[in-house]
Amino acid sequence: MKTYTFHESQNLFKRAARVIPCGIYGHLSPAPLVPATAYPFYAVKARGSKFWDADENEFIDYMCAYGPMVLGYNHENVDAAAIRQIETANCVTAPTPLMVELAEYLVDLVPVADWAFFAKNGGDVTGYALMVAKAATDRKKILMIKGGYHGVAPWAQPPGSHGVLEDDSDNIIRITWNDFAEFERVIRENDGDIAGFIATPYHHPTFTDSEMPAEGYWQKIEKLCKEKGIVLIVDDVRCGFRLNMGGSNEYFGFKPDLICFSKAMANGYPISALVGTDSLKNDASKVFYTGSFWFSAAPMAAALATLEELKRIDGPTVMAEKGRKLMDGMVAIAKDYGYDLKVSGHPSMPYLRIANDESLMLHQDWCAECTKRGAYFTSHHNWFISTAHSDENIQRTWDIVHDAFQVIKKTYGA
Amino acid sequence: MKTYTFHESQNLFKRAARVIPCGIYGHLSPAPLVPATAYPFYAVKARGSKFWDADENEFIDYMCAYGPMVLGYNHENVDAAAIRQIETANCVTAPTPLMVELAEYLVDLVPVADWAFFAKNGGDVTGYALMVAKAATDRKKILMIKGGYHGVAPWAQPPGSHGVLEDDSDNIIRITWNDFAEFERVIRENDGDIAGFIATPYHHPTFTDSEMPAEGYWQKIEKLCKEKGIVLIVDDVRCGFRLNMGGSNEYFGFKPDLICFSKAMANGYPISALVGTDSLKNDASKVFYTGSFWFSAAPMAAALATLEELKRIDGPTVMAEKGRKLMDGMVAIAKDYGYDLKVSGHPSMPYLRIANDESLMLHQDWCAECTKRGAYFTSHHNWFISTAHSDENIQRTWDIVHDAFQVIKKTYGA
Repeated sequence: MKTYTFHESQNLFKRAARVIPCGIYGHLSPAPLVPATAYPFYAVKARGSKFWDADENEFIDYMCAYGPMVLGYNHENVDAAAIRQIETANCVTAPTPLMVELAEYLVDLVPVADWAFFAKNGGDVTGYALMVAKAATDRKKILMIKGGYHGVAPWAQPPGSHGVLEDDSDNIIRITWNDFAEFERVIRENDGDIAGFIATPYHHPTFTDSEMPAEGYWQKIEKLCKEKGIVLIVDDVRCGFRLNMGGSNEYFGFKPDLICFSKAMANGYPISALVGTDSLKNDASKVFYTGSFWFSAAPMAAALATLEELKRIDGPTVMAEKGRKLMDGMVAIAKDYGYDLKVSGHPSMPYLRIANDESLMLHQDWCAECTKRGAYFTSHHNWFISTAHSDENIQRTWDIVHDAFQVIKKTYGA
Repeated sequence: MKTYTFHESQNLFKRAARVIPCGIYGHLSPAPLVPATAYPFYAVKARGSKFWDADENEFIDYMCAYGPMVLGYNHENVDAAAIRQIETANCVTAPTPLMVELAEYLVDLVPVADWAFFAKNGGDVTGYALMVAKAATDRKKILMIKGGYHGVAPWAQPPGSHGVLEDDSDNIIRITWNDFAEFERVIRENDGDIAGFIATPYHHPTFTDSEMPAEGYWQKIEKLCKEKGIVLIVDDVRCGFRLNMGGSNEYFGFKPDLICFSKAMANGYPISALVGTDSLKNDASKVFYTGSFWFSAAPMAAALATLEELKRIDGPTVMAEKGRKLMDGMVAIAKDYGYDLKVSGHPSMPYLRIANDESLMLHQDWCAECTKRGAYFTSHHNWFISTAHSDENIQRTWDIVHDAFQVIKKTYGA
């Protein structure tokens, strides 16, 4: 099987390194996890489940823009709705009626939502949720899960990170996922001081397996939060509309007070939403929170089109089935080569790890071998499956996986 | 002169109030400064210097989406570039080569910029600037100006605001604009503790006149920051590319270490940038900072098209001339009616106040009377002039201003 080269990506990256810190920042910060010899650094075209890089290499994309792409790149209805809105009224002094329509749509779609608020980034609405919780309770402290990701604001980053002070976590208490006894103990020790608890619907950190909630975990948390007047916040930025159209809490059977949505909401157009219960609406309205582009109508048009399409085709079920099929096949192929491929998390957002690989290098090399054959796999972060991934894509991916394991087996043995 | 009615805006707002906190949040939070009887709450079409509301009323827009609109709504080249990019590759797993091109363009355009970093909101980059300053200096404290606006993050809001803790300002010191003696004293009192100073290039708060920097203010600050190793940050989110294409510091003759850009950068498409000097590049690259939509290419294509057009037509000079002409005429008209209209700030971002109005009500009523005749004026916030405001718009605005002063004079006398 032909492997790709990345000369143009590397040329562009050399230019980038001169004028951009890191060249490429964030998750894609190239070294050391994203080796330049195996990964495309720049996309020039995207369509459906695929993108093409600056060297004209074609990739089946299993990162889906790290989540926003859910219906396939350049989905016809979504783009048509967004472009029509750009041509009519997008970022104007006043919002358009679409803001009202989208809020009404979310209130209908999401059982716990009595209202909705729109911003741009996931981090905008996780930050807003914390402020609403503090305003509503007149308390200072926020509980979150160790290793949980809620954006890049200083409160959300581990103390000791660059540019982050110890003081930034003064009112943050980090606890262990799925340990209800610890949750209970921390609440007892901080009685009357906890404004809110924020967590993703299941635990999907980097570098370790995803963990589903233990039986009854969320239900016990919901109950204790209600008793203690603690605002329960679900950060559904990554999972939202992939597990359940009504919020991932519906998938796990519990009711939070606030839910943060963003990534999959508008198939790539920039928007995020905080939705909440009536009891918090007054406090939400008192917190001053706004941004220059937050009333922009094109992403709202895209969100309505995306959510309608996801609902129409039952997107979460489609993605789960595709993800399960892909993973079952890959696990079987790995086994043929003597590798134990561990899959965790929801099938639409699988986290993969080769169990017989203590160094992590084998896993990284295997992802790289797949990527340079056209199946874009990232190491140590969950992948994303879209509704646009076809059976043909899956078959092609299996072929690539075969080929990559052959190479890996030669290098590492098994 | 016919005055507008706003039935459909009010109907939509009633629906909104049920499903959105405040109905409309942020600056446009309708009560009490934006009376429903005089203001359009929803836009349905925008073109050039104008927008049309849900009741089909036409407005010459002097808020320009609160700054992002700089070349006129739906500027042909900008929209064409953005839409072409949407159709090719917008929000993809990898950035497009446009990220490199835009960074190179900004580094060429902005004298102090050796590098550029892109995000979505102005608040994203003011927050990042603070983290870079802390990382670079290994210090904790940030100086800012009392009444300065740098976004809605808790550190940026006055303590006592809803959802904001006193603790959120533990490492923020607020000083008086244009008082270099205070600046010096605070630095002396916190010797070795100040990581950075963030301020807008001139002081443009709400509810009070804009204040230009005093003679030598910025130059003395630049000098002292250099001496003390304090990172000098200009928040050019509102003024950027309206005063000078190279950053507003060029207009005032000084060199900061970091500049935050956003609003006018892409004529309404959502993007912000932090640019900085080489000495901070390494620290900028170590701070983990990213967002789901930050690599999106359509706003980068729009930014390149906007900046090129602004440069081609010398946008800052065009806006200043239009703003000066409009204001000179309005001041003269006000005088004819016995009112003293005070104009402050840069002519492209004028702040207006009727001096013989202690209650503020007369000013608010006058803005409302103008708005319901088709010149959209907001009270107590600076306005924005775009390059699309024509002589015909200005003449029409003067006619409206005449008519509104007649009504005001009847109500209040003079």
